[in-house]
Amino acid sequence: PVNAGRIAEDIEALADITEPGRPWTRRAFTPLFLEGRAHIEARMKAAGLETRIDAAGNLIGRRTGRKPWSGTIMLGSHSDTVPDGGRFDGIAGVVAALEVARSLHDHGLELDHDLEIVDFLAEEVSIFGVSCIGSRGMTGQLPEAWLSRVSGDLDLAGGIAQVGGEPDVLMQQKRSDIAGFLELHIEQGPVLEAEREDIGIVTAISGITRIEITVEGRADHAGTTPMDRRADALVAASQLVLDIRNAAAELARTPGHFAATVGEFRIEPNAANVVPSKVVLRIDGRAEIRADMEAFCRWLDGHVEKLATAYGVTIGIPNRVSDNLPTPGDAGLLSTLETACERVGAKYRRMASGAGHDTAWIAKVAPAAMIFVPCRAGRSHCPDEWADNDDIALGAAVLFQAVREMDKD
Amino acid sequence: PVNAGRIAEDIEALADITEPGRPWTRRAFTPLFLEGRAHIEARMKAAGLETRIDAAGNLIGRRTGRKPWSGTIMLGSHSDTVPDGGRFDGIAGVVAALEVARSLHDHGLELDHDLEIVDFLAEEVSIFGVSCIGSRGMTGQLPEAWLSRVSGDLDLAGGIAQVGGEPDVLMQQKRSDIAGFLELHIEQGPVLEAEREDIGIVTAISGITRIEITVEGRADHAGTTPMDRRADALVAASQLVLDIRNAAAELARTPGHFAATVGEFRIEPNAANVVPSKVVLRIDGRAEIRADMEAFCRWLDGHVEKLATAYGVTIGIPNRVSDNLPTPGDAGLLSTLETACERVGAKYRRMASGAGHDTAWIAKVAPAAMIFVPCRAGRSHCPDEWADNDDIALGAAVLFQAVREMDKD
Ligand SMILES: NC(=O)NCCC(=O)O
Ligand SMILES: NC(=O)NCCC(=O)O
Repeated sequence: PVNAGRIAEDIEALADITEPGRPWTRRAFTPLFLEGRAHIEARMKAAGLETRIDAAGNLIGRRTGRKPWSGTIMLGSHSDTVPDGGRFDGIAGVVAALEVARSLHDHGLELDHDLEIVDFLAEEVSIFGVSCIGSRGMTGQLPEAWLSRVSGDLDLAGGIAQVGGEPDVLMQQKRSDIAGFLELHIEQGPVLEAEREDIGIVTAISGITRIEITVEGRADHAGTTPMDRRADALVAASQLVLDIRNAAAELARTPGHFAATVGEFRIEPNAANVVPSKVVLRIDGRAEIRADMEAFCRWLDGHVEKLATAYGVTIGIPNRVSDNLPTPGDAGLLSTLETACERVGAKYRRMASGAGHDTAWIAKVAPAAMIFVPCRAGRSHCPDEWADNDDIALGAAVLFQAVREMDKD
Repeated sequence: PVNAGRIAEDIEALADITEPGRPWTRRAFTPLFLEGRAHIEARMKAAGLETRIDAAGNLIGRRTGRKPWSGTIMLGSHSDTVPDGGRFDGIAGVVAALEVARSLHDHGLELDHDLEIVDFLAEEVSIFGVSCIGSRGMTGQLPEAWLSRVSGDLDLAGGIAQVGGEPDVLMQQKRSDIAGFLELHIEQGPVLEAEREDIGIVTAISGITRIEITVEGRADHAGTTPMDRRADALVAASQLVLDIRNAAAELARTPGHFAATVGEFRIEPNAANVVPSKVVLRIDGRAEIRADMEAFCRWLDGHVEKLATAYGVTIGIPNRVSDNLPTPGDAGLLSTLETACERVGAKYRRMASGAGHDTAWIAKVAPAAMIFVPCRAGRSHCPDEWADNDDIALGAAVLFQAVREMDKD
């Protein structure tokens, strides 16, 4: 039902809208971002959609259904990127959604429901340091305080206004009409490719928990302080990194996705001849099953105390900087997606998403689910991120079938 | 023979010449540094010394002896500091040397040898990123290329000229007249205090070897990449930090001072949700016995290969960024210092210096040795660095006795 060639064209066209010499960079709130959106909006119009920017700054293409009182079927993802990476992350889902609308249009197929294709604003961590602005904003979950976060001369409210949103009326425009939401996204992990499967039906989006830990030792002269009289914060923190990895690997072997990563790690004073006095590190934890995260945090709280004693350093109580629960996919939509996969002959597996997505925010107010398509070697957020066009097109076909199925309700 | 009160006065006066709100900071090449030197120069003159700045930018106070052809007895240390620390590091030795000259002057004692009191330029790592400018420069060991190192608008040659030196004639002024050199310095370690001893007679200044290691893994999405499919550079580097600590602790238990510290550690991309792709770390190694350092480097070269295999990362061959041999103290001067300690009733021990000092450079061209005085809790290069005035005065008395002894030769 869908046209793979048009998908390829759109993805190429968007890939061309990138910071010169820095593929593939089209960060939210930049002129390039608006250039990308202008392209998407033109394509929406060509597909017979009526376009608008909602209060939260999302770009929406709308097609009225025969029975608009049944609510809105919504498809979408995001067109913004992280720095240096994002040839497919987000944009594959926007283009696939657009192709579904275009196919319906081409085939003269009318739906009972209204259909909306959405490019969510700023899914990635943007200059304002937070993610999923558009999907949070559309569903009344954007913390009011975030609107005054600043970057340079701009605050987030100003940023939303600049792209055409109306931050003042966000709460009045909170959506309650969404009959069902679907998002296609690249997996951003290696499983589908390794297992030679076409589609991942996402059973749950893992909760994300960020934990900050500060290890404090004593800055001593590296030349003169005997090895057995040191309180080396880096040595203690190194042990902690290894123990976190091992604890996470163990939880990963039990059912349900689990991962924990020390991605941020900073030492002080970071001087050639001074024993490190301080390490501040941050853990990024992901759990499909909440009990796993709770077990991990309990273990961590007890473990840092033991390490502090063993290494003669001080370790502050691990600080949960942010903590989101796992979001299960809507059961009805998951089986709709299975049916759709079978109809188009796609080999699929049920799997969790380790990454956060706009879908998690929409799921708080409406039935929502998502599908993954494979990406090469699981690489994402880097210039060599790659997804085969045929895989994306097959995913778009699944969306197309699923929408027709959803429209029956 | 020496006057403890005058030592306390000078140390206080110099401590007052610090960046306001940032004790005790008097970095080389700053106006404050020149202010400190003006004070020292005034005190030199009051002690009957004739002052000059040599080609390398060292401040020298000179007293001609009765038999100047016997050569110069030189005493000194440095008046510059690291940022935030240096109430006693360096300056204690300058003031003690000055007090020796002053006492000789007061008592009307003439020497056969010429006597020089030196404040070496920029012993600490300065804005030019290198150390011991003055002592290297005075002895023909300042690499010519260093003169063009820049910091802001200034190069090192310009910096030396600014303090009154003559970088163009450095090599012509290389000293060959030094009959003996002594330096008093705070220990910068905890041993003398812990063992309740007054004086450390420094048998050797440890060699300093700096080694850079780069660990390269793969940047993957922290949410989606299964724990068992990662090449996490931080995990591998953490293991390396622990292994380096253990190897160093083992060598430290054998005779001869040994220490190795990972003081610099930087991860990339250092982003919340990305598996670390790269760690660059630097080891600061110290060995009193060269064979220890060679054993350590051999172990390290083999070990990183094993770790790379075990953790699925790449680790470059450890790169010796700099490598200095240990410097033994002059045997004759060491026994002169012992005699001097006994004469003034100081409890002493022979010990190695883990830190580098100007003495190491002077020792390349003349008999040289140094003594340590205790410092509180071994703290140095930090605002709470402290040495008791009585300990410094006792050290000065040892220097005084040693100079009289040296003058007999
Ligand atoms: N999909 C995606 O990369 N989201 C960014 C948030 C995260 O999961 O780390
Ligand atoms: N004495 C001293 O702190 N020297 C600095 C060089 C070093 O040993 O790290």
